[in-house]
Amino acid sequence: MPEICLIGTGGMMPLKNRWLTSCYYEYEGHALLIDCGEGTQIALAAADRKISRIDMLLLTHMHADHVSGLPGFLLSLGNSSREEPFDIYLPEGKTQTIKNLMSICGMLPFEVRFTELPTDRRFEFIAEQISPLVKIESIPLRHSTVCLGYSVTLNRRQEFQPQAAKELDIPVKYWRTLHSGESVTLEDGRLITPDMVTLSNRRPIKLAYVTDTLPFNAIADFAKDSQLFICEGMYGDPDKKQSMNEKGHMLMQDACRLAENAGAEQLWLTHYSPAEMNPKYYEKELKKLFPAVTVSFDGISLDIKE
Amino acid sequence: MPEICLIGTGGMMPLKNRWLTSCYYEYEGHALLIDCGEGTQIALAAADRKISRIDMLLLTHMHADHVSGLPGFLLSLGNSSREEPFDIYLPEGKTQTIKNLMSICGMLPFEVRFTELPTDRRFEFIAEQISPLVKIESIPLRHSTVCLGYSVTLNRRQEFQPQAAKELDIPVKYWRTLHSGESVTLEDGRLITPDMVTLSNRRPIKLAYVTDTLPFNAIADFAKDSQLFICEGMYGDPDKKQSMNEKGHMLMQDACRLAENAGAEQLWLTHYSPAEMNPKYYEKELKKLFPAVTVSFDGISLDIKE
Repeated sequence: MPEICLIGTGGMMPLKNRWLTSCYYEYEGHALLIDCGEGTQIALAAADRKISRIDMLLLTHMHADHVSGLPGFLLSLGNSSREEPFDIYLPEGKTQTIKNLMSICGMLPFEVRFTELPTDRRFEFIAEQISPLVKIESIPLRHSTVCLGYSVTLNRRQEFQPQAAKELDIPVKYWRTLHSGESVTLEDGRLITPDMVTLSNRRPIKLAYVTDTLPFNAIADFAKDSQLFICEGMYGDPDKKQSMNEKGHMLMQDACRLAENAGAEQLWLTHYSPAEMNPKYYEKELKKLFPAVTVSFDGISLDIKE
Repeated sequence: MPEICLIGTGGMMPLKNRWLTSCYYEYEGHALLIDCGEGTQIALAAADRKISRIDMLLLTHMHADHVSGLPGFLLSLGNSSREEPFDIYLPEGKTQTIKNLMSICGMLPFEVRFTELPTDRRFEFIAEQISPLVKIESIPLRHSTVCLGYSVTLNRRQEFQPQAAKELDIPVKYWRTLHSGESVTLEDGRLITPDMVTLSNRRPIKLAYVTDTLPFNAIADFAKDSQLFICEGMYGDPDKKQSMNEKGHMLMQDACRLAENAGAEQLWLTHYSPAEMNPKYYEKELKKLFPAVTVSFDGISLDIKE
């Protein structure tokens, strides 16, 4: 099952006691990272996460607090003896910005591959680097620069039915392939699809990750039915709503309303302003808006069982 | 008197308990910083140094562990409401690399000015941003990329002799100017130079800062008679000497020999390899080579009185 760790929870600048917002997602030994601000490589170590397991990076946007840790991260990845290509997904048109940052990296011992994602529509792809069962979707957000939200959905292996496979005379050597979600063609020409030998009783596990945006309805649709919705909450003071929204940010209360509309099971707030010294202060009030809200903190993690 | 703080002491990558090598030098409320690797803005806060006092940055070279904290540093400087121009000194030909890094900074509320320094010879200039009494010198080092060492020399105000000024009939309104080291021309046409009314009994205070280089004799000359010589010592194990020197680095022992040849009063080692988990282990042995050596640590500081 996936394990999710919010490596940092700060916005704008790293503080002595708060790393910049970044999210680690691991499934069966392979991990992805969302965003990489200054200090993220240290925050990963502080949260006991191994940089060597990270196979791909999703970037939301090009502001320094989300990308400036990239050169150090890539160099440390190189020191972890990685030689396989490393994939970076980012908004359309931004590859050159990242290449500029990488000009202080010198020669890395692995290839860095870039995939630009649309900034005018939602877009889905399979994260083969993690597992063929993991699907990623991006959504354009509304910030002061182009910015993407991401969801990561694990389409879980369904329960295998040996009895059904036996009744269909399917040789045992094909069972693992069918269980992993792939179809097979038998020697006798029959096409067997996974649904013929599995139950469909395990629902997908979905993480939605949205930061650096003003709130708008399509975010709730994007995060629909997620087990975990991680969303920015720059401030908890309702008086700051207008100024935050004008800057392309949202309040903790905005995030609670989106989580409610999304039907999310849990909401973790993140990306607090450096001026918000004690974000936990607001939690009790926020629970009136959305009971399953957590004013999260660096290193909070969740091993989703179901 | 100048106050010097070694903000971090690590090389290659920041660790949970060791920031990257960076040096803060403050004199009469104005400060300069040497190098700015990932996390330096947090390390400054951890060492209780105010980013808003920093008026200039000296960069040794363009490797990530010395410059990757720059975007975040500049943004935080902007948040500290700085509006005056900020000066960056760096090796010749490297301005574009820094501009590339700054592409994630957006609009800063102050101008960043670049001064490229020669990479083929030593070069001196006055750090007017700090004080007309502060002189900086750079020296080309021998690393895997162009790299500069720096010295910062405070030419202290000499003791003023009011009796001498009175005997020369110099109006009191000129005394402060003469004491600060400038000459004046009196109404009667006489040129008065500072040495006519001051003693010359206060010697300059010199800091030399050398990291990321193999050892060579000219470094000792460059650091000559420094009160404080800060020098890299990647490893303390003598068996690593050849491999370190081949990579353009030096051992702690190399630094001790240079300090001895320079006649430095104190040596602080820095820029330890991440593999060197307990550099302090070597201190006792190193003191046999150079008694005034300190295997320094993050935040070590010195307020030089004399």
